[in-house]
Amino acid sequence: MNWGAIDRYAKSLIKEAGHKIRISFFSTIDVDSKAEANDLVTNIDREIERFFISRIKRDFPEHRIFGEEGFGDEIESLDGVIWMLDPIDGTMNFVHQKRNFAISLGIYADGIGMLGYIYDVMNDDFYHAFKDEGAYFNDERLPVLQETPLAEAVIGVNASWVAPNRRIENGPIADMVRHCRGTRSYGSAAIELAYVSSGRIDAYLSLRLSPWDIAGGMVIAQEVGAVTTNLKGEQPHLLGQDTFIVARPGLHDEILRNYIKLK
Amino acid sequence: MNWGAIDRYAKSLIKEAGHKIRISFFSTIDVDSKAEANDLVTNIDREIERFFISRIKRDFPEHRIFGEEGFGDEIESLDGVIWMLDPIDGTMNFVHQKRNFAISLGIYADGIGMLGYIYDVMNDDFYHAFKDEGAYFNDERLPVLQETPLAEAVIGVNASWVAPNRRIENGPIADMVRHCRGTRSYGSAAIELAYVSSGRIDAYLSLRLSPWDIAGGMVIAQEVGAVTTNLKGEQPHLLGQDTFIVARPGLHDEILRNYIKLK
Repeated sequence: MNWGAIDRYAKSLIKEAGHKIRISFFSTIDVDSKAEANDLVTNIDREIERFFISRIKRDFPEHRIFGEEGFGDEIESLDGVIWMLDPIDGTMNFVHQKRNFAISLGIYADGIGMLGYIYDVMNDDFYHAFKDEGAYFNDERLPVLQETPLAEAVIGVNASWVAPNRRIENGPIADMVRHCRGTRSYGSAAIELAYVSSGRIDAYLSLRLSPWDIAGGMVIAQEVGAVTTNLKGEQPHLLGQDTFIVARPGLHDEILRNYIKLK
Repeated sequence: MNWGAIDRYAKSLIKEAGHKIRISFFSTIDVDSKAEANDLVTNIDREIERFFISRIKRDFPEHRIFGEEGFGDEIESLDGVIWMLDPIDGTMNFVHQKRNFAISLGIYADGIGMLGYIYDVMNDDFYHAFKDEGAYFNDERLPVLQETPLAEAVIGVNASWVAPNRRIENGPIADMVRHCRGTRSYGSAAIELAYVSSGRIDAYLSLRLSPWDIAGGMVIAQEVGAVTTNLKGEQPHLLGQDTFIVARPGLHDEILRNYIKLK
């Protein structure tokens, strides 16, 4: 397998998709009603998915594609090469904000993450990693993350997990919120993974994510020494939904040990 | 008073300050230790404040300046012209992320907001408004906001207000989180005010803000029909800290009536 060639291909494909999205936004500027605008935005979403899948199918017919919208393949095992793709991660941001969403792609071989990409389209911020060869933010090599205690950490966690919910005890999560330096919520798992990997926040957790939300970001996170597991401390499930945490080393243990009580 | 001239002056001053911040970041790239990097960042913060104050004092000696760091004036009344300035709103983002912070400025005459500016420095996103003459995002006029029910609204609220705290009953806030479409938290009151004014989120609330955090954003919000009050539904206090909410019309009432119980 020529991973270097696949890497160059994937980068080019993602950049082209990002360009298509930005162009589409310009052509919808004149739409008056919000309902119409939302329809157009949803159409862009579908077009971008079809663009990715037709290209990958044409140029890598032996590879499989695992993604949100069901245009890809039925995936029941991690054998072979799988492109785990979310063409637009952060759909609510995409619709409401037309920014703060990302293209997320992880390319896995027999379950092992080889290549990872997160493209924050409107900011033109490109994060990528090649297994064992490091992670990059645009052209800048991302340094390996140091340990940070919770008291100095900024945590990506949505308010919905601090409110009573059916997945996790919210009391300990509220304690975590009080004991850390601050919390943020950006509404895109891919962008929050990219933020942890580039040291802008120190951890991110969610109670329900799909493989294509985290597949690209996990490859990047691993190259900078961030720890990625589900909230039981196991490898995240890559064939279906699971809980998820990514954090600096040390902080990952501190959060799991003291603040996570799954229902 | 030539408000057009003051407007042009303020815009130019803010852009120059933003440029200084970006240049300073480039010159600190080579600093190795995180502690040293944080010191340098804090020094930039102080330098920018002094830059603003020296210029305003020189060119508008009869105006007063009300800001975070105490280099400005002691303000005990809203008489005359007051520049309400936060040179770096979102300090934690500034230190941890070197992005997602803003320069926030409101220029008030006898307590009435005449000019408002929010500059998201690293994204080069400039929001501004002139009383009764509309609000702008970069060169684009911002449309007047329509009503949105809570069930379709994205709310800016930090997780710390959903956890038990000494300022507000967190039960009703948790209900609000469950009943809305989603929540976000960006860590800069100015940016969240700019996001509400440009329709990217639908409301933002906080339990403790200072006048310089909200003064610029309030002028912008008013020009697009967003409602700004404290959490008692009164005009926010502009001489000291207060609670705060900005929201689309309708949504503002819905949140205050059903979900806010101050302690």
